Amino acid sequence: MSKEEKIKKSFSVPLIIIGSGNVATQLVKSFIKKNIQIAQVYSPNISHAKELASITKSQFTNNLKEILKGNFIYLLCIKDEAITPFAKSFKIKEGIILHTSGSIAMNVLKHSCKHYGVFYPLQSISSNRKISLKHVPICIEASDNFTLSIVEALASIISKNIHVITSIQRKKLHLAAVIVNNFTNHLYHLAFEYLKKEKISPELLYALMIETTAKAIELSPHKAQTGPAKRKDNVTIKAHKELLKKNPDLQNIYNLFTQSIIKTYHNE
Amino acid sequence: MSKEEKIKKSFSVPLIIIGSGNVATQLVKSFIKKNIQIAQVYSPNISHAKELASITKSQFTNNLKEILKGNFIYLLCIKDEAITPFAKSFKIKEGIILHTSGSIAMNVLKHSCKHYGVFYPLQSISSNRKISLKHVPICIEASDNFTLSIVEALASIISKNIHVITSIQRKKLHLAAVIVNNFTNHLYHLAFEYLKKEKISPELLYALMIETTAKAIELSPHKAQTGPAKRKDNVTIKAHKELLKKNPDLQNIYNLFTQSIIKTYHNE
Repeated sequence: MSKEEKIKKSFSVPLIIIGSGNVATQLVKSFIKKNIQIAQVYSPNISHAKELASITKSQFTNNLKEILKGNFIYLLCIKDEAITPFAKSFKIKEGIILHTSGSIAMNVLKHSCKHYGVFYPLQSISSNRKISLKHVPICIEASDNFTLSIVEALASIISKNIHVITSIQRKKLHLAAVIVNNFTNHLYHLAFEYLKKEKISPELLYALMIETTAKAIELSPHKAQTGPAKRKDNVTIKAHKELLKKNPDLQNIYNLFTQSIIKTYHNE
Repeated sequence: MSKEEKIKKSFSVPLIIIGSGNVATQLVKSFIKKNIQIAQVYSPNISHAKELASITKSQFTNNLKEILKGNFIYLLCIKDEAITPFAKSFKIKEGIILHTSGSIAMNVLKHSCKHYGVFYPLQSISSNRKISLKHVPICIEASDNFTLSIVEALASIISKNIHVITSIQRKKLHLAAVIVNNFTNHLYHLAFEYLKKEKISPELLYALMIETTAKAIELSPHKAQTGPAKRKDNVTIKAHKELLKKNPDLQNIYNLFTQSIIKTYHNE
């Protein structure tokens, strides 16, 4: 039996899922595929709790006081701003409490339970897209070594990519994730809107978008960079600014990137 | 025999490749796979011309006057700024001359040859990455219908994604390509450099980068948007700005995107 198989076989701590949104749903789906027991789902919205619990055939509640007590892993899959208030109102003597946020420090959980930690899947998770967590980094942290070994065992059941990361490193990683996910996606949005206004199909960009990401990963973004700003091709840059003169928001972004790329590659 | 097979069978116009860079190399590789004849490679650098010609077993020259004359397609795979000067110094009576640029108008070729046009593969092309052009949009344009039919036949041999696009539309498309390729790649670069400085491996972002692009294509960037700016989560935004206070360039980009995303989703 491999080390991985042993961990899976031996992992017998049932989970209690706090929350019923995208992260809760995707994690529950990943865990039940691996036969991890979900004991209960809590959500302030009873129909959401019921719906998610129906996948797992587990109990559900919308009453904080009815959350089962015992040797469980309590997995908080709730909004960042709800984590601290929840931890303050939820005190348990046994088990482990974990949150799943990129930007919230682990210590906000310390008055809730003796054993606490973080289980942060570094991925953009929506309920309307099927994703596999197998290659998704799970960034973990724990209050003590015992808890860390449990959290690591739990994470290794659904991902092959586990990293022990401190709260401050996780915060920085989350900032980088905002840059490559939220900001990249906003660039896509702006480019798509621009093309639609010009009666050109944004679909023409799909192959380029996929290749851009694949190339940056293979070569490094620094080596993959091309384009007018990299070449300091002032004729093309001027023509692009002219095209954007009725679009001041996109022009601001164009100017800032052009300056920043020129600075990076021409040391100016 | 399918229409596509007929085109391939009947396509018998040999190519002369002007240039020996990334675009020339990738196009030559794609054409020879489909048994398109390359008659000659021209490059001002004779060893580059020789190297590319060796793949195609064709003639090569670094002398403009030695470029073969006749019923050829002359495919300019040279830098944007070199196209107009080349076209001015290169006059032919037969054949078709095409350039491969996103940002140069077709008309700069009009004094070079009676039949001219554009063959623009909308992709980021490097010599150090293997790519298939099968799904890459080829944006074509031609001086007349006869030329257009030839250019279309040529494009359809290597891609299933052909679009007839005017010079002004192509210029706009190229601007959008700069946004989704050059600017996205620069965001990756900035995020990677930030993480390296903080002693965190940028590899942790790979799964997220791939998912971001796949999700934007599947759902539309507008529907795929998430994050603190979308939620107007001022606590996280403030914490991120604090993390970037020693990094004014990245902070400027952070601020501009945050404002632009808030404006998009909260109409402010």
